[in-house]
Amino acid sequence: MAQQHLEPMDPKAGTAGLTGDALAGYLRAQATEFLRALRLHRETGGTANGSASGTEESVDAARALRHSARRISGSLHTFRPLLDPDWSEAIRPELAWLSGTLAMEHAYASRLERLLLALHRLSGAVGGFPAQPSEAGTADTGPPTGPATAERGTLTVGAAKAGALLERQLTLARTRAHSTALQALGSSRFHAVADNIAVLASDVPLTPKAPSADLRPLAGAAEERLTDAIAGLPLVTAGSPYNAEALIHGLSPDPAPHPQDAPWHQVRLLLRLHRYGREVLLGADAPVDVRLLTTGQALNRHRDASEAAAAAAAAARTPRIAPATAYALGVLHADQRHEVEAARFAFQQAWQKQAVGTV
Amino acid sequence: MAQQHLEPMDPKAGTAGLTGDALAGYLRAQATEFLRALRLHRETGGTANGSASGTEESVDAARALRHSARRISGSLHTFRPLLDPDWSEAIRPELAWLSGTLAMEHAYASRLERLLLALHRLSGAVGGFPAQPSEAGTADTGPPTGPATAERGTLTVGAAKAGALLERQLTLARTRAHSTALQALGSSRFHAVADNIAVLASDVPLTPKAPSADLRPLAGAAEERLTDAIAGLPLVTAGSPYNAEALIHGLSPDPAPHPQDAPWHQVRLLLRLHRYGREVLLGADAPVDVRLLTTGQALNRHRDASEAAAAAAAAARTPRIAPATAYALGVLHADQRHEVEAARFAFQQAWQKQAVGTV
Repeated sequence: MAQQHLEPMDPKAGTAGLTGDALAGYLRAQATEFLRALRLHRETGGTANGSASGTEESVDAARALRHSARRISGSLHTFRPLLDPDWSEAIRPELAWLSGTLAMEHAYASRLERLLLALHRLSGAVGGFPAQPSEAGTADTGPPTGPATAERGTLTVGAAKAGALLERQLTLARTRAHSTALQALGSSRFHAVADNIAVLASDVPLTPKAPSADLRPLAGAAEERLTDAIAGLPLVTAGSPYNAEALIHGLSPDPAPHPQDAPWHQVRLLLRLHRYGREVLLGADAPVDVRLLTTGQALNRHRDASEAAAAAAAAARTPRIAPATAYALGVLHADQRHEVEAARFAFQQAWQKQAVGTV
Repeated sequence: MAQQHLEPMDPKAGTAGLTGDALAGYLRAQATEFLRALRLHRETGGTANGSASGTEESVDAARALRHSARRISGSLHTFRPLLDPDWSEAIRPELAWLSGTLAMEHAYASRLERLLLALHRLSGAVGGFPAQPSEAGTADTGPPTGPATAERGTLTVGAAKAGALLERQLTLARTRAHSTALQALGSSRFHAVADNIAVLASDVPLTPKAPSADLRPLAGAAEERLTDAIAGLPLVTAGSPYNAEALIHGLSPDPAPHPQDAPWHQVRLLLRLHRYGREVLLGADAPVDVRLLTTGQALNRHRDASEAAAAAAAAARTPRIAPATAYALGVLHADQRHEVEAARFAFQQAWQKQAVGTV
């Protein structure tokens, strides 16, 4: 296992003495994981046919592919000065293309699930429908088929039609994303990436001085980029409940009405880079940093709600829909924008709480 | 002045010794105020013609009429055992009818203002539209004509059409309410009420033992009904920001989808009764109880947002509206339901904060 390059560490011992060799070990491990996931994906029929969605195993394999591609790409970025610049600058956009392409199918599927759960929640409880979206799928008294096929009897005509419209649009988008991902995995562009990763699994192109270079300044710089970006967020507003900021452009004529979300999305990416940098330094078995975990979850929720709100708004622009459908989509859009606001509040709480705890 | 019956009190001296005589003084003062407001209303043309809405003075006079009618009615309720039961049971429903009828015109006007301000807020800021509805009316760069006539250029077609629809519907409702109020003030039913109040201004029908009876047990019982009702509110949920409870029936097929609001409305009425009871005991110059003030404001906001959300939902059921209009009304409905949730949070905060402070 490539993981053996990272000596098991006592967390209290700090990161002193960690050099480019540890980075090479991490990259080899992630490359090995990438190749394993790719093999699994091929074996489980991920590319065997053009079906609308993969088997559970091929979905897991695609997730593992994205997982390692993001980690390799992130590490190349954070520790850029330690790596052959031509090589790393060439492969990073290819890895971003790959993980982006592989992520779309899952994104559409979970967006649809989020929106259908919200529609059921908003349609109220005949006999006590649960308030939490995460519980709604299992609390149904019918067979556990999930909300997409759950009984529509409790929905108004508008909510049912809105659900059907979203299901149609997002299922189509998901099917297309699935085909695009399959095409990508069969392309010569992908094979070039896979060849590169196969080389990386045994031979990491470090610069001559890298093997003995200290990793901590570069990892520290990544953390600093994160904390700087967080300092730029409107956290005072976010920490004030019901500030009504997230819906402020809810009816804006601007086709891209939510520039306010961008800095939060950016922090999400920087947080991920910091987390990967920390993995390089501390190894995969490092203790979980609760603050990184909870703030990361809040930012994922922020991104998901932001995109779900946009999907509801987009569906409302479908020609010739009934007013009741449009009304339900408006309620749904606003609901998801409030989820955006709630996620910012959760982020602020998690970030502040830990900051106080560690001072 | 009838107020002289209430000796100026040192608040620290408590309410010891306050008897039915103080109640009689309070009722005489309120009855005098009622008659003064009625005279003012007639003089300022409140009943002079059938115009869509009254002058500023007649609006003030109508407010003063409601103000004293509510205080008389509330005091008759709280101190019922001290008053001639036949008389007080006969006049209370008449006062409720009167203050209810007089309140409608103002309610429709402020509902429309609230909804139009929200539509502008939701349409986003060209050059920084303020987030707070209370500030939005004055921050417009145009002449201070209020949102109803403010430039529509920043609104989407849907928001503009939704605004026009609400303006049409609520202005019509307001005009009808105005006519109904004028008819009421000219009716023999009203003249019977006014005659009763004229008698009350000089002769309060206390029971034989009332003049020396202690007011505090009855005022205390009113406060207890309030605290009992508050104890029944879901304050733990309300105090957890972004609990998403208020919108849970946002798309419910139930035509009266918000039974969850009723206990809050009930607390609002009990809080008002408690406040009036306190006025009887402490006099009109009593120091302001910040807790009663802030919790009362939160409950007014709760009621206003609840009714505004219902008005948006009702407008969305107008036949043959465009999908874009319905979408904007859906966003607006959800926005106002979140205002409902925010008001509950504000109530919980105000109630808890003071409770901690006084323990």
